[in-house]
Amino acid sequence: MTDVKHMKWWGWGVEGVGFHHEDKPAFAPFVKKAVGLDVWQPAGEQPSFEDLDVPASQAPASLVQGLAAIVGEKQVVTDDLERVIHTYGKSIRDLMRVRAGILPRVPDVVVYPADEAESQRIVALAAQEDAVIIPFGGGSNISGSLEPEKGETRPVVSLDMGRQRRLLELDEGSGLARIQAGALGPDLEKQLNDRGWTIGHFPDSFTHSSLGGWVATRSSGAQSDKYGDIADIARGMRLVRPDGIAEIRAIPSASTGPSVREMIVGSEGRLGVISEVTVQVHRRPEERQIQAYFFPSFSAGLKAMHEISESDASPSITRVSDARESGFSLATSKESKGLSGAAQKGLMAFLKKRGWNLDELALSFIGYEGSPSHVRYQKRIVGKIVRKHGGLGVGAGPGALYDQKKFDTPYLRDFLLDRGAAADVSETAAPWSKLQDVYDTVVKAANGAYDSIGVSGWIMCHLSHSYRSGACLYFTFAFVTGEDKIAEYDVVKSAIQQSFIDAGGTLSHHHGVGVEHALWMEQDISPEGVAIMRGLLESADPQRILNPGKIITDVRVPEAR
Amino acid sequence: MTDVKHMKWWGWGVEGVGFHHEDKPAFAPFVKKAVGLDVWQPAGEQPSFEDLDVPASQAPASLVQGLAAIVGEKQVVTDDLERVIHTYGKSIRDLMRVRAGILPRVPDVVVYPADEAESQRIVALAAQEDAVIIPFGGGSNISGSLEPEKGETRPVVSLDMGRQRRLLELDEGSGLARIQAGALGPDLEKQLNDRGWTIGHFPDSFTHSSLGGWVATRSSGAQSDKYGDIADIARGMRLVRPDGIAEIRAIPSASTGPSVREMIVGSEGRLGVISEVTVQVHRRPEERQIQAYFFPSFSAGLKAMHEISESDASPSITRVSDARESGFSLATSKESKGLSGAAQKGLMAFLKKRGWNLDELALSFIGYEGSPSHVRYQKRIVGKIVRKHGGLGVGAGPGALYDQKKFDTPYLRDFLLDRGAAADVSETAAPWSKLQDVYDTVVKAANGAYDSIGVSGWIMCHLSHSYRSGACLYFTFAFVTGEDKIAEYDVVKSAIQQSFIDAGGTLSHHHGVGVEHALWMEQDISPEGVAIMRGLLESADPQRILNPGKIITDVRVPEAR
Repeated sequence: MTDVKHMKWWGWGVEGVGFHHEDKPAFAPFVKKAVGLDVWQPAGEQPSFEDLDVPASQAPASLVQGLAAIVGEKQVVTDDLERVIHTYGKSIRDLMRVRAGILPRVPDVVVYPADEAESQRIVALAAQEDAVIIPFGGGSNISGSLEPEKGETRPVVSLDMGRQRRLLELDEGSGLARIQAGALGPDLEKQLNDRGWTIGHFPDSFTHSSLGGWVATRSSGAQSDKYGDIADIARGMRLVRPDGIAEIRAIPSASTGPSVREMIVGSEGRLGVISEVTVQVHRRPEERQIQAYFFPSFSAGLKAMHEISESDASPSITRVSDARESGFSLATSKESKGLSGAAQKGLMAFLKKRGWNLDELALSFIGYEGSPSHVRYQKRIVGKIVRKHGGLGVGAGPGALYDQKKFDTPYLRDFLLDRGAAADVSETAAPWSKLQDVYDTVVKAANGAYDSIGVSGWIMCHLSHSYRSGACLYFTFAFVTGEDKIAEYDVVKSAIQQSFIDAGGTLSHHHGVGVEHALWMEQDISPEGVAIMRGLLESADPQRILNPGKIITDVRVPEAR
Repeated sequence: MTDVKHMKWWGWGVEGVGFHHEDKPAFAPFVKKAVGLDVWQPAGEQPSFEDLDVPASQAPASLVQGLAAIVGEKQVVTDDLERVIHTYGKSIRDLMRVRAGILPRVPDVVVYPADEAESQRIVALAAQEDAVIIPFGGGSNISGSLEPEKGETRPVVSLDMGRQRRLLELDEGSGLARIQAGALGPDLEKQLNDRGWTIGHFPDSFTHSSLGGWVATRSSGAQSDKYGDIADIARGMRLVRPDGIAEIRAIPSASTGPSVREMIVGSEGRLGVISEVTVQVHRRPEERQIQAYFFPSFSAGLKAMHEISESDASPSITRVSDARESGFSLATSKESKGLSGAAQKGLMAFLKKRGWNLDELALSFIGYEGSPSHVRYQKRIVGKIVRKHGGLGVGAGPGALYDQKKFDTPYLRDFLLDRGAAADVSETAAPWSKLQDVYDTVVKAANGAYDSIGVSGWIMCHLSHSYRSGACLYFTFAFVTGEDKIAEYDVVKSAIQQSFIDAGGTLSHHHGVGVEHALWMEQDISPEGVAIMRGLLESADPQRILNPGKIITDVRVPEAR
């Protein structure tokens, strides 16, 4: 049996780690007020794997033996737990399904290649055996990019990249690192840090997501404002295909036709298995600060972020939360940390005296990196803009707390699910001129959806990334589930996705498409745009064995060639 | 007859404008020494259009009438001059061929749609009539992206975008401008400037190249270091296809699968006709400076540019010339301007005294934009780095001259062609760690090629764009032509392109692929990479009517569907 470790089959993260509210006194009253949920109620029982009815593996012996001949018997796994772990990602929809034992199609076999050569032989074998290949990195996907198609009659192989986590080469003269695609965030960051470098890519899923997964889903990270999205960071890549390796060398910029690099980025396994990525890396900055600011309203915060994006400053992080999320953040602070307790009370009293409506308060974080003088220079520019929009700097304390806790948020979803509530996230990006309308439209749509199904719901938002022409709005929504929580979730999620498009946003800024967002692709990039993409995906995989059904749902099986 | 104006059929730019050396006293001796050419010799006669043997138009009456029904008779042109103008771009190979009357396949008809709706009807008609569509912008292409395939038996329509040059919409709240793709640089920049904005995209071809052409060939401009390549600037686009319009909305960043936006960028007409582009624009900067610096060698200059790219400064231009190009630049200065004459002599004496080898001197330009304080801030950072690498600031004079003359360089090629020499350019990009080797390899390859064909040749180079991980090296080469100048050119050009790849560079940083660079595509992006791209192009154009044969040469005609 392989020794690659995975997240819990039923939830986020590692066994024994979870969200706790006992040390956050404001949390329980906050949730009670927000959605009427009593978080002090005893949690439901932890799901038992024994209760699941796992379909048997349909892998033919020839396939299993063929795989074992490539990677060794230990690295070919057909047991139920492993196969269930590889069935879904970690969206709340995935968690609800796996906890409920809804497993219409489970991979038949999980294989752990040691290197690219083994991956290549596996993909070639799959082509020969007419088996489906679904690449698997950290398993943190929340767009349905990992699940086999429901009616798939061919054997399904989950190709787990968990043994390929090494930094292979560091070109210090160019700041380019060639890294195996199975490396999780901490794996690669540690190997880079040890040599004085950083990738500067920190998605919320960082601890449990892989480099290959970031590329496959067009990920962004907390510091993408400065370091770029993964589409910018990933300069070169190697993609395992049935007939060989597609290699895009790490060239800083090229005019060699339609960008194949940008076809592989976001391909979610449909063009092949991303095996290695050469990423832009940076020497660790001399100084790194995250400063917190308060704005009198979310609108004022948005305007300030816009002006910062047009300014001569180039902060690493620009983030501002709406009033609801700001309230939530303050409520989840620990008693002893950040802006809670007495300090918070004092500050609030001061703001009230200055005429602020505290119900509208918007919490913001701005990150700065570089030499000490560059950090000072940028803070000065930003400070001026913040003040112009009525904002106020509140120091580095809350920022440090945010920085330290940012990877823990996903655990909250399991905590709520254990107590009868579903929480998930959806994010979009739109031009600055449309952002306020996107925000208003989405909030209205979510609340309309809650009303229509008669549940008590909540939606909050922050601007998470700024670009010169627009920004990403990141929504978190939660509701107390009723009879049929998956159907309820679908109503809410659909309303939010549709409202993104209706208000001029994209259906996803950095979570990918998978099957969850595929329905809106024609509305997002137009039917003719989808036709172009369909042509790419179908022509690159005439046998339809490379993670079929993702990104574009109704892919037609091409006639035999 | 349409009133859209074009460049000379036999050369660059407008009639009556050309390169003159009489006011540049150092030029003639420089050329004499470099390649043994006497530029005082009388120029050859201006080519006469009467001497050309232009193949007759093969457009069937049904097609011509159909086009006239769409755009009006005035905008459908089949006369020889118009058709010849639309046969080639302006590479030196194009100019040599057209001057020699080598016209194996000339478009049969040129059509000037007034708007997107007319373009749409034209493309649909072409599909119906089985005619080839080649989109035409400013006609400045130098990669062979405009010529019809030699053996094309179907009618060929050149779709000229020259009547579609308007700024359609300016979203000042987001800095996004929707512009018709036929707008030439000056058209769109003027419309933007009038409202206080700039696109910040200034390729050397600016005066005679179009927005659609920039996107179709993945152009970069002089200020791309700051504003990005056209792939970054072009946020949204509309593409006319036989069955409708593919519309990519201007979203700041999206994770909606393989990027169709990045498939259209660089597509050179093979996916359809780019009709409108929504570009990122910027308020005109308060201050704009181009400072000149001298380095004791090109290597020192490269090292400084690398360090600048890693620094906290973000200049708009980073440019450094090798010793040969620096000598050439100083030799083409007018007596009264820039660093020529007495001032130059004095400076050189000073440097010599400081121990510089003046034969190795490398001239550099760095551009700064932003608020006055930001310009100062950046200059301080850059100044320190320049000094660290032994460089010296020489003020804004030469920079102003460069800025003013940068669009005139292409005229020099006609001047030389008139006098028995061929000059052209090739550019590449590579990681910083490989740049010196790319440079050495290319110079050696070019000189080897000159030797092998027994011509007297010259090659010079500048770094034209910096990125975090590497840079663009831009080579200009010239030689005194012998018996068969096109064959000689092909030997030299091929040697240079092959050396790009051999040393780890790309075959083109910003001139596109066309047919001139297509041979090296498999070496650049790997055979499997080309296979993916081929699938995209073939599936998007099963009828093979959209500028066939470009980017990938051996595109197979797919079986009838």
